[in-house]
Amino acid sequence: MLVVMQAHATEEQVRAVCEKIESLGYRPHAIPGAQRTAIGITGNQGAVQAGGLDELPGVAEVIRVSKPYKLVSRDVKEENSVIKFSNSSVGGRELAIMAGPCAIESREQAFAVAAVVQKAGAQFFRGGAYKPRTSPYTFQGLGLEALKIMAEVRERFGLKIVTEAIDNESLELVEEYADIIQIGARNMQNFSLLKRAGKAKKPVLLKRGMAATLEEFLMAAEYLMSEGNYNVILCERGVRTFADHCRNTLDLSVVPAVQRLSHLPILVDPSHGTGKRDKVLPLSRAAVAVGADGLLIEVHHDPDRALSDGMQSIYPEQFDELMTEIRQMASILQRSVPQPASSAQTATVR
Amino acid sequence: MLVVMQAHATEEQVRAVCEKIESLGYRPHAIPGAQRTAIGITGNQGAVQAGGLDELPGVAEVIRVSKPYKLVSRDVKEENSVIKFSNSSVGGRELAIMAGPCAIESREQAFAVAAVVQKAGAQFFRGGAYKPRTSPYTFQGLGLEALKIMAEVRERFGLKIVTEAIDNESLELVEEYADIIQIGARNMQNFSLLKRAGKAKKPVLLKRGMAATLEEFLMAAEYLMSEGNYNVILCERGVRTFADHCRNTLDLSVVPAVQRLSHLPILVDPSHGTGKRDKVLPLSRAAVAVGADGLLIEVHHDPDRALSDGMQSIYPEQFDELMTEIRQMASILQRSVPQPASSAQTATVR
Amino acid sequence: MLVVMQAHATEEQVRAVCEKIESLGYRPHAIPGAQRTAIGITGNQGAVQAGGLDELPGVAEVIRVSKPYKLVSRDVKEENSVIKFSNSSVGGRELAIMAGPCAIESREQAFAVAAVVQKAGAQFFRGGAYKPRTSPYTFQGLGLEALKIMAEVRERFGLKIVTEAIDNESLELVEEYADIIQIGARNMQNFSLLKRAGKAKKPVLLKRGMAATLEEFLMAAEYLMSEGNYNVILCERGVRTFADHCRNTLDLSVVPAVQRLSHLPILVDPSHGTGKRDKVLPLSRAAVAVGADGLLIEVHHDPDRALSDGMQSIYPEQFDELMTEIRQMASILQRSVPQPASSAQTATVR
Amino acid sequence: MLVVMQAHATEEQVRAVCEKIESLGYRPHAIPGAQRTAIGITGNQGAVQAGGLDELPGVAEVIRVSKPYKLVSRDVKEENSVIKFSNSSVGGRELAIMAGPCAIESREQAFAVAAVVQKAGAQFFRGGAYKPRTSPYTFQGLGLEALKIMAEVRERFGLKIVTEAIDNESLELVEEYADIIQIGARNMQNFSLLKRAGKAKKPVLLKRGMAATLEEFLMAAEYLMSEGNYNVILCERGVRTFADHCRNTLDLSVVPAVQRLSHLPILVDPSHGTGKRDKVLPLSRAAVAVGADGLLIEVHHDPDRALSDGMQSIYPEQFDELMTEIRQMASILQRSVPQPASSAQTATVR
Repeated sequence: MLVVMQAHATEEQVRAVCEKIESLGYRPHAIPGAQRTAIGITGNQGAVQAGGLDELPGVAEVIRVSKPYKLVSRDVKEENSVIKFSNSSVGGRELAIMAGPCAIESREQAFAVAAVVQKAGAQFFRGGAYKPRTSPYTFQGLGLEALKIMAEVRERFGLKIVTEAIDNESLELVEEYADIIQIGARNMQNFSLLKRAGKAKKPVLLKRGMAATLEEFLMAAEYLMSEGNYNVILCERGVRTFADHCRNTLDLSVVPAVQRLSHLPILVDPSHGTGKRDKVLPLSRAAVAVGADGLLIEVHHDPDRALSDGMQSIYPEQFDELMTEIRQMASILQRSVPQPASSAQTATVR
Repeated sequence: MLVVMQAHATEEQVRAVCEKIESLGYRPHAIPGAQRTAIGITGNQGAVQAGGLDELPGVAEVIRVSKPYKLVSRDVKEENSVIKFSNSSVGGRELAIMAGPCAIESREQAFAVAAVVQKAGAQFFRGGAYKPRTSPYTFQGLGLEALKIMAEVRERFGLKIVTEAIDNESLELVEEYADIIQIGARNMQNFSLLKRAGKAKKPVLLKRGMAATLEEFLMAAEYLMSEGNYNVILCERGVRTFADHCRNTLDLSVVPAVQRLSHLPILVDPSHGTGKRDKVLPLSRAAVAVGADGLLIEVHHDPDRALSDGMQSIYPEQFDELMTEIRQMASILQRSVPQPASSAQTATVR
Repeated sequence: MLVVMQAHATEEQVRAVCEKIESLGYRPHAIPGAQRTAIGITGNQGAVQAGGLDELPGVAEVIRVSKPYKLVSRDVKEENSVIKFSNSSVGGRELAIMAGPCAIESREQAFAVAAVVQKAGAQFFRGGAYKPRTSPYTFQGLGLEALKIMAEVRERFGLKIVTEAIDNESLELVEEYADIIQIGARNMQNFSLLKRAGKAKKPVLLKRGMAATLEEFLMAAEYLMSEGNYNVILCERGVRTFADHCRNTLDLSVVPAVQRLSHLPILVDPSHGTGKRDKVLPLSRAAVAVGADGLLIEVHHDPDRALSDGMQSIYPEQFDELMTEIRQMASILQRSVPQPASSAQTATVR
Repeated sequence: MLVVMQAHATEEQVRAVCEKIESLGYRPHAIPGAQRTAIGITGNQGAVQAGGLDELPGVAEVIRVSKPYKLVSRDVKEENSVIKFSNSSVGGRELAIMAGPCAIESREQAFAVAAVVQKAGAQFFRGGAYKPRTSPYTFQGLGLEALKIMAEVRERFGLKIVTEAIDNESLELVEEYADIIQIGARNMQNFSLLKRAGKAKKPVLLKRGMAATLEEFLMAAEYLMSEGNYNVILCERGVRTFADHCRNTLDLSVVPAVQRLSHLPILVDPSHGTGKRDKVLPLSRAAVAVGADGLLIEVHHDPDRALSDGMQSIYPEQFDELMTEIRQMASILQRSVPQPASSAQTATVR
């Protein structure tokens, strides 16, 4: 259920409605919009008993929601959510470019790749510290050591850090060291982890599961928001089908589908979405063209020696080309991609 | 098996090799390239017995092909195939835009839609005469009457005509009246129809089946080429997956995958690929961005009253917008989309 | 729309209703049931105008049908349809076992396999004369020659013949020589072929398409019935999914799902459904256990030298074992499988 | 890599090989078989350096394994693994029947259902304490309270308890209260949870993920075994496909596919596998017929009022019928299903 406040409702009136909701045994989520504040009600297992909410001062309307998701819905918040960082944002006019190696392998490797992506204009550095690997016998990531290396990368290159948490323990550390907590596709319905991430102080990047319908994807985001973390970024990364020419089938139609139903930003990961280096550029262009709010790209300075997923990591010069191409694409759609750092700027950062 | 001729091989030498191949009981397909001529050998059911082909004058190399497709392969022809029409082409620098109603309903409707798409710059008019419909009780198309209407459309608007053939009988008529014979997704493995279309004098537009792998798609094209029709245009139109937010899942990654393996042009049909009007524009942009050689778009001047597939047909003004957007997109990729017909030009055509 | 006649309605009354329906411009399908006759009305493209049908003598009820299929539905005919042959049937208490080689390769091969399957108890011989092959360069079947060999098999072994038609031309011949016309999975939505088969005098075995939903499967059967051929046998043969341990994923749940909605019999083909010899026996048992009305099994006396699909053909001794196992299974479900032919019987046939 | 010991190798020799493996920095897993002991080597990230293992006394052979799974493989252990409990087992001649409600709702409900399933012959009671639900707003299970109720069920009815753990915290409790720890489909690639369950003292029931290939399924089991828990039971529960007549597509072919590659027992869950009550019985029969080692069935004494998944829970009388049917099925396959508890026996238990 949703309580929509009048345009001129005071903060005090909003607070009074929230208190009333709590007194009924539910949980209020006041979400301010450009025009009006909407208050989502969660915590109910059946129908909410309205209990006279519509008669409180400042209340414009009480809406019964039939869709299973509430807080992620445009019904609750009409304008796009923009997740803000000190010098960048996700969901605004500027596309968010998150790039880096599949896994952090060493300080040298991380710095080498970070220099490449920062120079080309990326605002975020992605790198795996905890790797969910199909086999127990393959490289599982450097863990805390990788987190510390990435914290250094932030200092040195001014890039925000995105990295995956795979359980409550790693989430605690990721929350401490990184700027964005990634929940991977295999954990999209790890509801226990979602609840924990929903209590985190940092934004969450939620990847779509390999066999997740749009509704399940949005419901996973609802888990995060229902715990109070409203800074959720969605990410399409390919779904599993019979098609065998790529590792996954990148479902770009989910981007406008999400944007129709939800106010949350959505990125696309063409690296995992295709699993093939030579498909990353064309699908990156397509992702921008379809309207994605940004990209997640695997870049490695020496992909042929990468400890994981080397086959899908692109070379530094390919990343430069990619940035140039999507910069032009973006401008057609009245969006932008940051310019490459000039030698001067690069020097300053260093 | 492939016989690659030397760069300076004479026509006579090529002919001699072809005759030798025939004398061995196989079928030669001489396909001239920019640098050299390659001769594909088909008609064998097991391994070809080379029979001294590599010793004939002008032969550079005899290559055993391990992939099941031959004539569609870049091994046979390195440069892109361009299918030429009197005033346009498919597979060249200029994108091919094929637009029109799902089904031809009347002369008035066809002319109304043709005027819209021609004015916006489309070079091809698509419309269904024979409709493969899931139910025997729904509108099955006007048949020959529709073909005649489309022939009038060509005269009046200078648009080339694309329409589907569903069996040998309709193929005969489509071959007579239209410029491109469409083989629909449901008939992609109707091998009997493919063989007949392979003997047709007109180019064939082959749509990917709903559950076809890339290899099966290329093998269906191979059926057409093995009968001597080298003017084949491929078209991605969505595959069937668990995802339920669109009618199909448009697999844009197949575009670069086809382009890597085959010299044939490939279009994208975002109308069937999504089944939803509001997804056609974003996915059209994405298709151009990924590198498709053109688009197949359903346009209706009054989609809400269309006799079939109205839900996915876009409005005239949306088509104008689409053309404007992809024109800009194309230029980034060093490709082009025809300019809208000026009033003057439109008048001339009339 | 359905007209349900009263239990005691006379043939004359039924005829009068049919004539009335025709006079309204529709097509009547009188389908006698155990208790009552139901008359399906097709030929309408929108809602049928009832035109006073409910006031005719003998009419019990006029039912508006909301599902897209009518004639295949249990609403039209409550009891199971049983397709009868001179000495066997499909859809009755006795399971129908159709066995034989993927393709007819020679008279010797056909007779060798027929002897095996007849001896083990099969009532039907299946063999390909026209093979829909993915590649134009592989064995496409012996055509008419194979049909003639199978006609001999019928004479010699008393087995009914099932074979696939792939276009109107081959259908004409299959209708002449065989007892059951098979429409393959790749042609399940070849509506032109379905219409022609709907006019045939012989029963049709319709295989489910590789990506066909239950509704599409039933609608394909509706095409056959709407043309007047009420002897339709359905067959599940595996669908296409991401799973790669078998060639297809055999969807046994479709058997009870069909049986709930339709009166038509449904068989299972575990040979194509799995594509692997060692999976045929366990899945055959499962198909009988789930309630299928019979099996379609590829058997070859020398599978390792088969010209097509040898990998999935079972050996003669495996077929004996299969028959023994399903005979026991069937009895638990109050169904039966014919006993192996005794030497005496076998001699008689010869 | 695998070290296969000679048939007459002494325990001391086995121990010496294990020590040598440890000294090389790897982890040995000595798995005794009927004829011989095999020692799996894990902990390597690239190729194992053999280091003279093949020269140690008692070593018959050192085998390099090319498949990514080792400990789950029949190469390591040829005979079927049988997981033993005080009065029953999983993987032996007798089928394991695990039945109970989707979620434990109350002591009364649990006891009512337990009485039903115990009387009909089930040896295991399944019930959800921690429910992974798509929506954060639906019933999430009674948690510890449910575990305590199930411990009472074990006391009262002599049934072993199976229940799902969804994170490290719940796993600790499930390990304490239950007899088998279930890892659900959504957590099949929650590698952190798998590692924790691999250290647990109780057997693990691992459900196949909705989009998991056979290899990924076996690799998830490998995670469990690589941590030392060799008591792993696999369970097929339906995969996600385009088919929409059931909630999932039950892939019964995975049963013989698993049995060919692995020594681990595999059950089938037709309740989640179909999501429809009327499909549970036929698919249960099919699962037994295909060779599954047991079933996981949702039974509710009042399914129409169940707090979760009521649509797929069967009625008590249906469960009786199911047990009767599969008892007959099993005997054909030289397997057995426990007889229904006689009044006397039931009394004794009470």
